[in-house]
This record gives sequence, structure tokens and C-alpha cells, in this order.
Amino acid sequence: MRFVSFELDGKAVLGVREGEHVRIVGTESLESLLGRGVDLCEYAESNTGQEKVLARDLKFLPPLQRPPKIICVGLNFADHTSESKYEQPDYPTLFFRVHTSLIAHDQSMVRPRVADCAGLDFEGEIAVVLGKGGRHITKDDALSHVAGYALFNDGSVREYQFKTPQWTVGKNFDGTGAFGPDLVTADELPAGAKGLLLETRLNGEVVQSANTDEMVFDVASLISIISEAMTLEPGDVIVSGTPSGIGWARNPKLLMKAGDVCEVTVEKIGTLRNVIADEAAS
Amino acid sequence: MRFVSFELDGKAVLGVREGEHVRIVGTESLESLLGRGVDLCEYAESNTGQEKVLARDLKFLPPLQRPPKIICVGLNFADHTSESKYEQPDYPTLFFRVHTSLIAHDQSMVRPRVADCAGLDFEGEIAVVLGKGGRHITKDDALSHVAGYALFNDGSVREYQFKTPQWTVGKNFDGTGAFGPDLVTADELPAGAKGLLLETRLNGEVVQSANTDEMVFDVASLISIISEAMTLEPGDVIVSGTPSGIGWARNPKLLMKAGDVCEVTVEKIGTLRNVIADEAAS
Repeated sequence: MRFVSFELDGKAVLGVREGEHVRIVGTESLESLLGRGVDLCEYAESNTGQEKVLARDLKFLPPLQRPPKIICVGLNFADHTSESKYEQPDYPTLFFRVHTSLIAHDQSMVRPRVADCAGLDFEGEIAVVLGKGGRHITKDDALSHVAGYALFNDGSVREYQFKTPQWTVGKNFDGTGAFGPDLVTADELPAGAKGLLLETRLNGEVVQSANTDEMVFDVASLISIISEAMTLEPGDVIVSGTPSGIGWARNPKLLMKAGDVCEVTVEKIGTLRNVIADEAAS
Repeated sequence: MRFVSFELDGKAVLGVREGEHVRIVGTESLESLLGRGVDLCEYAESNTGQEKVLARDLKFLPPLQRPPKIICVGLNFADHTSESKYEQPDYPTLFFRVHTSLIAHDQSMVRPRVADCAGLDFEGEIAVVLGKGGRHITKDDALSHVAGYALFNDGSVREYQFKTPQWTVGKNFDGTGAFGPDLVTADELPAGAKGLLLETRLNGEVVQSANTDEMVFDVASLISIISEAMTLEPGDVIVSGTPSGIGWARNPKLLMKAGDVCEVTVEKIGTLRNVIADEAAS
């Protein structure tokens, strides 16, 4: 099933896609349902008969607006590590995002009005949403912890990413992390979302193209390795890394400006589309 | 006032210190009260007459167990930057902690049972707890956003901190971030917690000693600069950085092992004490 969160009459609503329509299944958030250990597909099936709305009219929200953790993985495609002038680490390169940086499908991705930002960079990625938490999860068992997958555009303010040894601030400007539109349950996809074509397009032109098979650490490995360090929780999101093609590594640099349209498409998951806008003056 | 969170009959309870005692003021968490815009001191004064318990008997909890964000600042004392072999950046070096890494005063700080961890390292710090959120907060206005201050021991698994270019995982093992015991409201301290002696002791021996005046970015600057990038929220915690003396930079290295006692003391704030324990086998 494909779950979407959206705003209706000022309230956050959860629905499932049915063709051109979305059938409303309730007002409890995905993070709350997952936190209670609810099976999402059973929940949707037991909440039938409610209102349907046209998908194209929706004001989307991120599938989860306040995940317990948003764990991002850097340097997880060898050609991206190389274009970024890093040595490939033999351990996943982790950093966090916080919920204040998230935006939904169709929302503006924000180029901040700080002095030192020539433009926003794109990073098309797959986000893994956990249905079950745990610590010291084995690799063999890891995929049973996945509720589903979504798309992510890990919008990066490169000047800030590289102001210090830590990337965190460049990855956490408000309105830079696009997430959605659908949470596609794991049963609809190949195990570990393997073998899928991932493409990012800027104003229609393909700027990133790779197969998810090329990840240095696959989804099962990421879950297992991360859980050696920290307790994973239902609703945690692992943003699994971007392939080569980022704008900052090009010569000349290709950075996103107001009005640009950025799309991330992954086979069988869908397309996440955002228009870039400058941050409003306060 | 000095607020403490603790467990009583299996429930999380909030109290204020009165000498040797703690007077219970309610069961609503500090993050919830701050999120609702409640003035903590007024709240405590309007909830008098309740039960008192002896402070020395308490099972403490972190003052806030699930802050919206835990923003840590690295390289914020020049002599620590130097011992860590970094150039001093002209911008705060930020990374996040997540709530799963937090422990309270008197709880065990956990040396994880991963293969590659010779011992846990200490980092005594001051944590700033925000009472009021905002974006683009001016430096002049920044300190009016502070609810209070607490102590933090930013326990670090150095081998993991340096496995990749990002420190995050080495700073986020379960049970490594000691926080508390008291949230001391800002009115009890010098503005911006300036001019205070910060000391870390390991088994009674002073291993870090500095004055908070030596911070490269003071509390007001941190709030202002961070809020240029992201919306700050009530209950957000800024862990403001450690001075020199860390165990990893010594020759030979000084790393904490099971049974070691680590204490962080800051004048007028108090002492945060934790005993190191090995992670239990699963």
C-alpha cells in the first residue's frame, strides 16, 4: 500500500492511494501508528468506507512529520564519495537531520537568505522508515524491521556544510529536506529496495542516475550497523545516501535557484517534486 | 530555581530543590511545560504544598528526556581544538545527539560492547535549555530565549567518532550522554553562564578545568548563529562544548573503564556524577 499524509481543513490526515484518489483512513500519524506497533496495511483495511479525495488536489505533508530520529548516510555510493574527494570509509558515514528541516512533496525547497549561499544543492535518495525498533539487530533480521520506503531530497547548503569539520548545519536549514510523497510499504518493493533506478532531474534534465544496488552499505547492513550503536525506534527514518552528480562537484558548479524544479524518481516508489524558492525576508 | 526530573513509583515526576529536599511540583515534563510557554518559576510557585522527598534518595531522570533537538557544539574551546589537531573554525562546529543516547545523573555511563572500543572518553560541558524558540534571533535578544542551564558529559566513543568524516555515531551510543541533575533557571546564574569554573574529575582527579569565559562562541552567539539556519524550539538543548584535557588526546590515552567515576562540576550549577559500566551482554 501507498500511504500519504496531507492537510485537510487545517488538520493532518492519513490516506492510502487508490488510483487517482486517496482514501482517508484516519487522523493518527504514521509515527504514532508505528510507535503503537500497528500493522499499517491491516489498519488501512480496517478503516474502509471513508471519504475519498483527488490525489492531485492534495496539500501533502511529509509522510512522518516528527520521526523519532532521521539518520542520514553520507558517502554511500562510491562514485559520489570520489566526486566529493573523500576516501571511501569502511563504516557508514552518519549524521542527523532534525524535523524542522523537513518539507513535503510540492512544498518549496528553501534557499536560505544567509549571506554565504550561492544556491541549494540536490541529493536524491531513498528513505527507509522503520516499523519495528531494536538494538543489535542482525543483518539477517534487519529487513523485517522496515515498514516501508519513501523518497528524499537531502537539500544541502554546501558553504555551511564545509564551514567546519561537521556537515550537520549545511544539512539542516529549515525547508531543505524534502520527504515523500508516499510511504510505500515494504511488501510492494524488492527486498531492501534493491535493484531500483534512482534519478534526480533538475528542470527536466537528469543530473543523478544510479541503481540502488550500487549502495556501499545496503539497507539491511545500515540497520544492523546503526543498531550496534543506538536503539532504533519505530518511525525512525534512515536516509540512505545519494549517488554521484551533485551540483557542487561539477565544474562549473550547478546550484539550484528560485524557480528551479527538482524531482527525485525511484522506480516503483514514485516521484518527489519540489520548486526552489528563496527564503522570505522576515 | 533548580528543577529536577526523577522517577517515583514508576512515574516521571518534576520537582524543585529546597535544601536537602525536593518538592514535587507535578508530573508534566519540562519539555511539555516549556513547549506550552509556561514560566517555570511561576509554575513551581503555583504548585506548592505537595509532597517533599529527600534529594539523596532520588532516582534521577535527565531534566528533559525528549528535547525537540539536542544540538552539540564541537571545538568551542581553543585549547581543545588544538589538542584535537583541528584548525579553529570561524563558525560553530555542530552535530546532533538523539534522545536514545541520554542518561541521568547517577545512572551508569555505558562503555559499549562493540569490538573496537578501548574505553569511553569524557567531555564536561554546559547544556543550555531554551525556553523560547525562534528563527533569526539576534545576539542581543538571544539570552532572553534561555530557560536555564544544566551539566552535560558528552561521553564519546572515539574509535567510532573517527571511523568516518562525521563524528555523529561516536557521540550517539546508547547511555553515553549524561545530562543533569538540575536545570538551574537562568536568573540564578550570570548572564550566558559566563565566568564559571568548569571541571571534570575522573576518579577524583581533575582532568579538565576551564572558565566558561573561554568559549570561542558564547551562549548568546551560539543561539543567534544556530537560529540563522534552523528554527529553534522551546526545550531545545545546546550542549556548548568541552575544554581541553580529553583522554583521547593524552599520551598515553586515558579512557574510562567499568567502575570509573566521572564528575562534571560547574560553579553555581552543581555536579553531575556517573559511574562507568560495560554494556550488558544481550
